Amino acid sequence: MEKIRRNERMSAMMKILSGAPNRIFTLSNFCEMFGTAKSTMSEDIDILREVVSQFGLGELETVTGSAGGVRYRAKVKRPDARKFVGDLCQMLAGSERVLPGGFLYYSDILATPSITNRMGEIMATEYYSQAPDFVLTMETKGIPVAFATASALGVPLVIARRSSKVYEGSAVNINYVSGSGNIETMSLSRRSVKEGQRCLIVDDFLKGGGTAKGMVDLMHEFGVTVVGMTFVMSTAKPLKKRITGEKSLMVLEMDAENETAHVKPAFWLNGDA
Amino acid sequence: MEKIRRNERMSAMMKILSGAPNRIFTLSNFCEMFGTAKSTMSEDIDILREVVSQFGLGELETVTGSAGGVRYRAKVKRPDARKFVGDLCQMLAGSERVLPGGFLYYSDILATPSITNRMGEIMATEYYSQAPDFVLTMETKGIPVAFATASALGVPLVIARRSSKVYEGSAVNINYVSGSGNIETMSLSRRSVKEGQRCLIVDDFLKGGGTAKGMVDLMHEFGVTVVGMTFVMSTAKPLKKRITGEKSLMVLEMDAENETAHVKPAFWLNGDA
Repeated sequence: MEKIRRNERMSAMMKILSGAPNRIFTLSNFCEMFGTAKSTMSEDIDILREVVSQFGLGELETVTGSAGGVRYRAKVKRPDARKFVGDLCQMLAGSERVLPGGFLYYSDILATPSITNRMGEIMATEYYSQAPDFVLTMETKGIPVAFATASALGVPLVIARRSSKVYEGSAVNINYVSGSGNIETMSLSRRSVKEGQRCLIVDDFLKGGGTAKGMVDLMHEFGVTVVGMTFVMSTAKPLKKRITGEKSLMVLEMDAENETAHVKPAFWLNGDA
Repeated sequence: MEKIRRNERMSAMMKILSGAPNRIFTLSNFCEMFGTAKSTMSEDIDILREVVSQFGLGELETVTGSAGGVRYRAKVKRPDARKFVGDLCQMLAGSERVLPGGFLYYSDILATPSITNRMGEIMATEYYSQAPDFVLTMETKGIPVAFATASALGVPLVIARRSSKVYEGSAVNINYVSGSGNIETMSLSRRSVKEGQRCLIVDDFLKGGGTAKGMVDLMHEFGVTVVGMTFVMSTAKPLKKRITGEKSLMVLEMDAENETAHVKPAFWLNGDA
């Protein structure tokens, strides 16, 4: 094999690392792949770390210890996150997207990869330190953003259903009170999670928090710890939700009289990372 | 600003290009970002194209014309796709995953990013040339893989629902005959697609083809052309489906008597790309 140059090695490594966020690659992995010495590889990684940081492309971290190596995390800097969410809010403003009944149409941004994947990275940034084992969402609209968050965290997505399905095997069902005050059912396959795991809840919309509370209760049934909750949008009212400690990207205020939606970036996005 | 070296530029470009598959970046984009001349940039891209090809990381293409530039496509070579799907089949084999009623449990692989995103790239590889404007799926299990395919194609995902929702606005509903012979409803928001667009259908499972046929009929209602259909798994029986021309990754044969599942890579994966 022809000798591989530094620029070629580094480009390939960047693709491999950023294509598998949060996964630890040993130096030996790359030494074998490119036929280089460990010292050379260390230099490559030092430069790569600088590049990633300089151009705001995430974070490259060296992990020490026996399971050590290098890993890429799709971290978004707070000002960049604030700017991105601010632009989204602009896109959602006005009256065109207000539907009869005072609902806001935003399904499109929930499944447009360039937007959805970025939201997932912003959400993941807040919870890398909590080391969740999986992401949980309740079908349907939040699935793409929950999957994008799971991708950035490098963990599986688990989907709770409205009823149990034959092709999911035996399931745990719980009842919960939805936003509209109805008693609803939430179902999760027994095979999908294990006792003692850590879970991040991701969903598209938070109003009263009934569904979110249902997911928390469901996790308790499985002996799973909920390490965080994050939503694309939450409503300004009611101020008091049935859950606490969640992070939403945007806050929605509906002006029913004028049929206008006001969407603002959530307050925490203004703070330091 | 300090002068940026070739290895730094190339690494950053690799991340930016592969992070936005199928999007065309003009050379000027990158010249501005890095403060380099067009000739230097062209050289960078020539080297990058080689790297991507040599390490099987996809494809970098130069697009000529007034809207020209460079774009990354997450193309998977046929032998690599065949190997990946073969490994998946191994993972799904045996009796552990067979559920009462002769169903196969594989929800986990449908929402594990390292697997799901790769399936999405394999599916996208087959349809880049058809230039779909969006990906369509029917809720729920196929959403992550459909989103992964949409990500690789750089187009939005559109999700058909079992019933119309107030927060989706006015919708078109159609009835279709499901695999079990029941009449079911499929609903799609009017806002989500436009007449004259091109659609790729992606779903997790194909048995008789009733749901798939429903999606095709739904697209006709919208004046949309279906350019392809692709599924994670299709059943060996019935051999004759209600649709034709689809590509599935795996073929499932259930041995009901012995409660064992046989899963094989689809035949087309053996062919040339």
